[in-house]
Amino acid sequence: MANFKGHALPGSFFLIIGLWWSVKYPLKYFHQRGKKNKLDHLQQRLELIEATIKTLFSAIGILAEQFVPDGPHLHLYHENHWVKLMNWQHTTMYLFFGVSGIIDMLTLLIAHIPLGVDRLVLAMAVFIEGFLFYYHVHDRPPLDKHIHSLLLFALFGASISIALEVIFRDNIVLELFRTSILIFQGTWFWQIGFVLFPPFGTPEWDQNDMDNIMFITMCYCWHYLLALCIVALNYSLVYCILTRVRRPGGGEIIGIQKLKPDHTYQTALLSGSDEE
Amino acid sequence: MANFKGHALPGSFFLIIGLWWSVKYPLKYFHQRGKKNKLDHLQQRLELIEATIKTLFSAIGILAEQFVPDGPHLHLYHENHWVKLMNWQHTTMYLFFGVSGIIDMLTLLIAHIPLGVDRLVLAMAVFIEGFLFYYHVHDRPPLDKHIHSLLLFALFGASISIALEVIFRDNIVLELFRTSILIFQGTWFWQIGFVLFPPFGTPEWDQNDMDNIMFITMCYCWHYLLALCIVALNYSLVYCILTRVRRPGGGEIIGIQKLKPDHTYQTALLSGSDEE
Amino acid sequence: MANFKGHALPGSFFLIIGLWWSVKYPLKYFHQRGKKNKLDHLQQRLELIEATIKTLFSAIGILAEQFVPDGPHLHLYHENHWVKLMNWQHTTMYLFFGVSGIIDMLTLLIAHIPLGVDRLVLAMAVFIEGFLFYYHVHDRPPLDKHIHSLLLFALFGASISIALEVIFRDNIVLELFRTSILIFQGTWFWQIGFVLFPPFGTPEWDQNDMDNIMFITMCYCWHYLLALCIVALNYSLVYCILTRVRRPGGGEIIGIQKLKPDHTYQTALLSGSDEE
Amino acid sequence: MANFKGHALPGSFFLIIGLWWSVKYPLKYFHQRGKKNKLDHLQQRLELIEATIKTLFSAIGILAEQFVPDGPHLHLYHENHWVKLMNWQHTTMYLFFGVSGIIDMLTLLIAHIPLGVDRLVLAMAVFIEGFLFYYHVHDRPPLDKHIHSLLLFALFGASISIALEVIFRDNIVLELFRTSILIFQGTWFWQIGFVLFPPFGTPEWDQNDMDNIMFITMCYCWHYLLALCIVALNYSLVYCILTRVRRPGGGEIIGIQKLKPDHTYQTALLSGSDEE
Repeated sequence: MANFKGHALPGSFFLIIGLWWSVKYPLKYFHQRGKKNKLDHLQQRLELIEATIKTLFSAIGILAEQFVPDGPHLHLYHENHWVKLMNWQHTTMYLFFGVSGIIDMLTLLIAHIPLGVDRLVLAMAVFIEGFLFYYHVHDRPPLDKHIHSLLLFALFGASISIALEVIFRDNIVLELFRTSILIFQGTWFWQIGFVLFPPFGTPEWDQNDMDNIMFITMCYCWHYLLALCIVALNYSLVYCILTRVRRPGGGEIIGIQKLKPDHTYQTALLSGSDEE
Repeated sequence: MANFKGHALPGSFFLIIGLWWSVKYPLKYFHQRGKKNKLDHLQQRLELIEATIKTLFSAIGILAEQFVPDGPHLHLYHENHWVKLMNWQHTTMYLFFGVSGIIDMLTLLIAHIPLGVDRLVLAMAVFIEGFLFYYHVHDRPPLDKHIHSLLLFALFGASISIALEVIFRDNIVLELFRTSILIFQGTWFWQIGFVLFPPFGTPEWDQNDMDNIMFITMCYCWHYLLALCIVALNYSLVYCILTRVRRPGGGEIIGIQKLKPDHTYQTALLSGSDEE
Repeated sequence: MANFKGHALPGSFFLIIGLWWSVKYPLKYFHQRGKKNKLDHLQQRLELIEATIKTLFSAIGILAEQFVPDGPHLHLYHENHWVKLMNWQHTTMYLFFGVSGIIDMLTLLIAHIPLGVDRLVLAMAVFIEGFLFYYHVHDRPPLDKHIHSLLLFALFGASISIALEVIFRDNIVLELFRTSILIFQGTWFWQIGFVLFPPFGTPEWDQNDMDNIMFITMCYCWHYLLALCIVALNYSLVYCILTRVRRPGGGEIIGIQKLKPDHTYQTALLSGSDEE
Repeated sequence: MANFKGHALPGSFFLIIGLWWSVKYPLKYFHQRGKKNKLDHLQQRLELIEATIKTLFSAIGILAEQFVPDGPHLHLYHENHWVKLMNWQHTTMYLFFGVSGIIDMLTLLIAHIPLGVDRLVLAMAVFIEGFLFYYHVHDRPPLDKHIHSLLLFALFGASISIALEVIFRDNIVLELFRTSILIFQGTWFWQIGFVLFPPFGTPEWDQNDMDNIMFITMCYCWHYLLALCIVALNYSLVYCILTRVRRPGGGEIIGIQKLKPDHTYQTALLSGSDEE
């Protein structure tokens, strides 16, 4: 949907999942380091709810793209013409996120699916989004083209980072990076909506002004900074709350990590394997 | 061969190998996790048959490209002119896959070839295919150009993924990804054939229509989704059949994998090395 | 600031940090291999001072860009026009390095921040610098465009290399590479200043001369060679001084490393994990 | 030197080193697996000779580029004009390979240089060669441009592969890949010489003919195939000779490697670290 709502909807979806991740991953990280093998049941249930919501969001997105008044209503080809291909492309994007959600669910429910498949499919979903956007933006005014193509940096970056999680699963740094990119993408969709389809009667942006393009490029960086701050804030909040809750029982968390000169992630992994 | 058969032939080759892989890799994966060190002899024989068929397919492809009525019949340069360079380029593509097949055979038969060389040569064969396609598509109508250049995403993606298998050999996720890309490539070759050379008298596609290009871009994503579904289906089938067969003897497979928070692939590898 | 000072300032910042790194990392490397777990307190204090200086430099950069006489003085939008976007873009670049400095400090001071986040944020800061430069250089004379766009190779190379340090933390080779790129970037900023804004009344360069562009391309390589030599020199100096200082107490350093055929970095890491 | 000799000289250098590597690496590989820790002294001496020859070749290249009759004779700037920048660029390429040779020597002679620096500098030398070629080929006839730019695939591929050896040092597959690329580069330089400057009075190639470009693209692939075959042949020869020599003393080599389903390179590395 080439209007404000068509950008606000996916933006909100990405923001909601991103904000949830910015709470979930710190929680998981501290939990793992504090005590082992508890809350697992709760954690698995939360993951399942998350996967369901992800699938649901995709379904809502597909239905919205198809059945808005000027949507294709599931008609693809009609009287020698393709019907509303833009909406169909958006449908395809949502569809891949939906598949990713279903795979997440299956990975949790069925034991015989190899770990990593969920990350691979998510990486593919993000890649497909970038791929479709890449071929999406021809024949548009410069600002429209630019504001959409900036998204490609985030999408291909996220795709590579998520694909790395197939090998380096449960790496907190990669997970936080993914989280920050997702929030970033969410706020950027809102920004696109505000720039291209000003909702409150604010004046239109001149789509050919070079200065606008230059500002938007810089604004893109600020959005990422904002996303970083949100992740950092939620990370700190989770830490503070966890510390408060646990203080009576003893400080399990404080002082765990010391900055040794040879404390590499790799060795952490290796010594982790000895403990098991 | 710039006609329907010239695309259906490699498409079928890729599909056959891809479908076989979508059965082989799950089979290997469950087999490894269930019991150790059995069926090895059978497995090695199957691998050998696969390598032979791969080489055979390449030979058929080369012969077809060279000796079709309008082929070059092994003439490369004739009266100051290069003869049928298109067919020669296709021959080169098949040739590299043939070399990859031969290397696969040698790796199985001769113990002193380092593991990983087979993957590297396969990655090179896929890269060469992409490389030749990249310089292949100039001076053609837009749709023809676009439909071929889309293939590059699959080819370079597959090439990187297969090259990773040099380091992370026998990683089931990378193997399934490779399988899905191969099936995808197979169905896409058929799609190219149907679009550019409609076989059953269906009307020609307008090669300059922007909407056709937009549809094809999206269609490309759907093909990948189809490939993913085929892999998932075959994976499930293999699992079901294996479970049925083994149930009398005890459930070796069910409940092996638990989703621990720190269950990384890396640690799996490491603990695997302890067991040996 | 599109003048000589505007390039000399960041150039000096990069040079100072780069030269300090070219001393720090060899020192850390020899220190780790000689004796274990000493000087840690001093080391941590030095790291903290470095992070503070990094943040300070960024603050100076931001203030300089904003409050030079022809700067924007924190005005972004004024009378329907964006104010001095060039300066704002430079401000954004400094800002990200400032955030990276703050994250470095926090990682040192607070135990619960996962190792690797500091590297990721630094990689992002370098990427953002490259990203903004990429969209920065349109509509300029060829030499100006070329001399700035050459910087992108260093920036994106550094960004990838620093991102690798998230996984392979404390790898001396990656650290030295990062150091060499930083010094390189520092000298290059000075070079840009001298070429585009000759400070001592030297004649202007012809910005459209193809030969000048060809020379600058080659000159860029020489700058990297210079940076390599500086790193090598400082590395040797640190080694010599350390050896002199320690000789009375016995030769801890000499003869530690032997070139075994199977002495891979990976095994070094692994045996390192056993020792802990 | 834009003539036949100017391409034959580096081509020969690359070929000589490449052919030597195609013998050295198999030798090292079999040697390591057969008996441990012998011949080390000889091996180190060979490595030293190789590094010296590499440096020597670079020196010859630099001298040839500078002091051919129409060379710059070390003059860079003369009467407001850059002197023979083409030759200076070639000099720079040789220079970096020379630095790489010196670093190789130092790594062998001095124990305190971290392993991996030699690979990093080699990767940089190859990258710089590619980088200079990339900006080298503007304003030339299409065939000239194309035949040089094809080289970039080999150079950037080799650069990435060599950089990987910083982490995965002594991986035989990466070493053989590097060897094949080097031989490939050597034969391709000869090919460039024959195409652009036919030495034996053969007719000139039409530099604007699309068919010639198409043939050269394919020919490039054949050269790589040739390089692969040379590496495979030398590998087999080394194996046969080693087996003959050792047969009296018992078959140390045969039957070492079995294709186990979970025999990953990673586990090989890990179990290797246990043995030490």
